[in-house]
Order: sequence, then structure tokens, then C-alpha cells
Amino acid sequence: MEKINLKEKFSRFSERWSPKVIAEMNDYQFKLVKIEGEFVWHDHPDTDEVFIVIEGKMCIEFEEHTIELNEGEMYVVPKGVKHKPYAAKECRLMLVEPRGVINTGEDKGDLTAPNDQWV
Amino acid sequence: MEKINLKEKFSRFSERWSPKVIAEMNDYQFKLVKIEGEFVWHDHPDTDEVFIVIEGKMCIEFEEHTIELNEGEMYVVPKGVKHKPYAAKECRLMLVEPRGVINTGEDKGDLTAPNDQWV
Repeated sequence: MEKINLKEKFSRFSERWSPKVIAEMNDYQFKLVKIEGEFVWHDHPDTDEVFIVIEGKMCIEFEEHTIELNEGEMYVVPKGVKHKPYAAKECRLMLVEPRGVINTGEDKGDLTAPNDQWV
Repeated sequence: MEKINLKEKFSRFSERWSPKVIAEMNDYQFKLVKIEGEFVWHDHPDTDEVFIVIEGKMCIEFEEHTIELNEGEMYVVPKGVKHKPYAAKECRLMLVEPRGVINTGEDKGDLTAPNDQWV
């Protein structure tokens, strides 16, 4: 395989809320995503989900509190915990989760993105 | 859980070649490690291993070629593939791999680090 440069990979797409796979490790995927605005409330009943902010700032709203993540910060959303990501300006993230996770959880809607979109 | 700031976590230790766990996702661990100089040839027979360079520059030597990774670059070493990391100057990395992986592979030696050391 080739080495992966995160900035170069981000330059290959402009869509928001549509995670792009950049690498696989065993049955896990590393994905890049650009976000801006509000996502939908959802959870992932079978897996934790890792957020790492590569550029910008985002928030993750939970039922009882909200966290703010800046560049160089990460958070593990535990499986089954309802959350809603949002970002006032475009924010660039890396997500780590098992292959096959649906971005909006079980409730599919307008923001449901196709899986296994590699860049 | 609290959010994790990578720089703050790196400030908590100075040892080289001794990965420190900062987060778990399902049965996987995210670890930070500072490296300088040459590691040992080894492989991980049961798992891929992800390297992400947070600060600095490193190389990974393979039997047939060597790759150079700079800040913001990552690489997935496939399971069972012999490799030797090295860095001319201190380099700061994030590793992602299943809980329980031994840093030197099966051949334990002076550079074998204890597992599950959290910072």
C-alpha cells in the first residue's frame, strides 16, 4: 500500500457529511469527513465511534451535555449513546469505526451517506 | 468520558518506544508514542497496525523498501509483515491496534514495553 496524506485526501472531495474511506485495519475503517451545520440525532447500537478533529472546531451534543472539540482533540462516543454533531464553520474530521457503520445510525434519512466510498 | 487533547497527553511522558494508551474503542486501543533512533525488526502475526504521525518525521523499513512518513501522514502495516520503525529525531506518533498487542511482536527484548500504560 501507499502512505496516506490526510491533507491530500481532503483535497479530493468537497461534500459535507459524507465520510470517505482512506484506510482499513482489520475490519475497521478510517474515514475523513467534512462537516458544517447540524447533523441528526442518532446512535450506533453495536459500536463505539471515534472522532478526531484534523482541522477546525466541532461540537457533539449529548442528551445531558455538549462537548467542543478543537484541532488535535479526539472523543470516543460509546455505543448506543445518542449524539448530534455540529459545526458552525467547516470542520475536517477523521472517524474510526468498524466497516459497515451507517453515518445516521439505524434511522435513514436525507443525510444518510453511502458506505465504502474511498478517496 | 473526557475529550482527549493529543498535545496535552504527549506532555505527560518523555520515554521513547513506550506506547501510552489514551483511548479505547470496542477492543481497540489508541496509543501515543515518542520514538527516536532505531527500533527492532518485528511483526504482528494477528493484526494490522496503524501509524499516524502527529509531529516530526519517521521511516518504516520493510524487507524490500522503506517509506517515510511526515506529519499528517499515516500507514497501515499489514499483519505478519516484518518492519522496523526509526526516526532520526524525536517523532510523535499515534498507533491504533487491538488491545494486547506487544510492541516488539513475539520476540521480547530490551525494547519490549509494558501494555495498558494509560496517560
